[in-house]
Amino acid sequence: MESRPAKRGPKPKPHTRTNLVRAGLRVIHAEGYAATGIQGIVDAADTPKGSFYTYFASKEAFGAEVVNEYSERGQSRLRDFLCNPEIAPLSRLEAYFNDRIQAFRASNYAKGCLMGNFSAEAADHSVRIRKLLAKHFRAWSSIFENCISDAQNQGAISSQFSAAALADFILNSWEGALLRMRVEKSDEPLMEFKKMIFGRLLI
Amino acid sequence: MESRPAKRGPKPKPHTRTNLVRAGLRVIHAEGYAATGIQGIVDAADTPKGSFYTYFASKEAFGAEVVNEYSERGQSRLRDFLCNPEIAPLSRLEAYFNDRIQAFRASNYAKGCLMGNFSAEAADHSVRIRKLLAKHFRAWSSIFENCISDAQNQGAISSQFSAAALADFILNSWEGALLRMRVEKSDEPLMEFKKMIFGRLLI
Repeated sequence: MESRPAKRGPKPKPHTRTNLVRAGLRVIHAEGYAATGIQGIVDAADTPKGSFYTYFASKEAFGAEVVNEYSERGQSRLRDFLCNPEIAPLSRLEAYFNDRIQAFRASNYAKGCLMGNFSAEAADHSVRIRKLLAKHFRAWSSIFENCISDAQNQGAISSQFSAAALADFILNSWEGALLRMRVEKSDEPLMEFKKMIFGRLLI
Repeated sequence: MESRPAKRGPKPKPHTRTNLVRAGLRVIHAEGYAATGIQGIVDAADTPKGSFYTYFASKEAFGAEVVNEYSERGQSRLRDFLCNPEIAPLSRLEAYFNDRIQAFRASNYAKGCLMGNFSAEAADHSVRIRKLLAKHFRAWSSIFENCISDAQNQGAISSQFSAAALADFILNSWEGALLRMRVEKSDEPLMEFKKMIFGRLLI
């Protein structure tokens, strides 16, 4: 039997759970959380519908996994840019935002930040997702905070405000700039953000 | 016939279109645009489903009316606060944000800004709604701009940046602070916003 040619049919999926999360992330980021159904997720993952419920108790549980996946990728990128002690702290920060602005230009200013989108769509409707978003936003903010704290310790910027408050404000303002970017289909909100953050806030 | 008692049944709705927009605004603001169906809108307006299509060609056309209604109410409030020449410009701005923060406290930090929510949900999927949001954000921003310009002309704040760029940044940052507020269920993002805007940006 083992030597018989494989039957036609669905290919085996060794990592069905991972495939579902990655495909679901792409669909939800492009279409929105409320606009995406289980069928759209399993179609994108090329997986039978039944397998969804093998791995996830509900759409909410799946959404939580998508937020985790997106946030962890983003934190990894953020650490790559912001935790390099060989580069001046403000240059690390600026390089990070330049990289993100370039990526949004390349995608024609679509989709924005998945965590921001979930905040708008799901924060009022799922305590589980809301608390998860709070945790991840704090994790992102603390990476900014460490970099800003380096800049303060090196005397590169004022210590009038705590690094934590500056980090939160920068992260939140960036989320708002991304919303406006999607509406304007332009990098102008992002460039104005940079101008204010680096020309006024972080001096 | 005129003297005959009214039959039982749906009450006459003299302003069905207005009722639909107002009820739809409440439902969409609370539930989200994608999560709201035509049935939910007509139920909230206590109107038969057929009447929806008497007034609106599509959900998109209805969404555009909801954005118009919300934005016009918001602009009216914004002008009440920001266009009073008897109050110092920065005091007008601060009073506006204090009023909004108080309102979000009273609603337990739910719902946020309907225009921000539409930006997250619909900007990539409806050119019509995206362009309408761009128009309304610019109208909001120009009210901020005039007030900031007054502050600059009176020498109350620096003219390093144009009033237009400051206004856009403030509006966008406020939108981001509202997203974070919904996730944190706290006024802290709004208070940090105020601290940075009035303690660093507008000096």
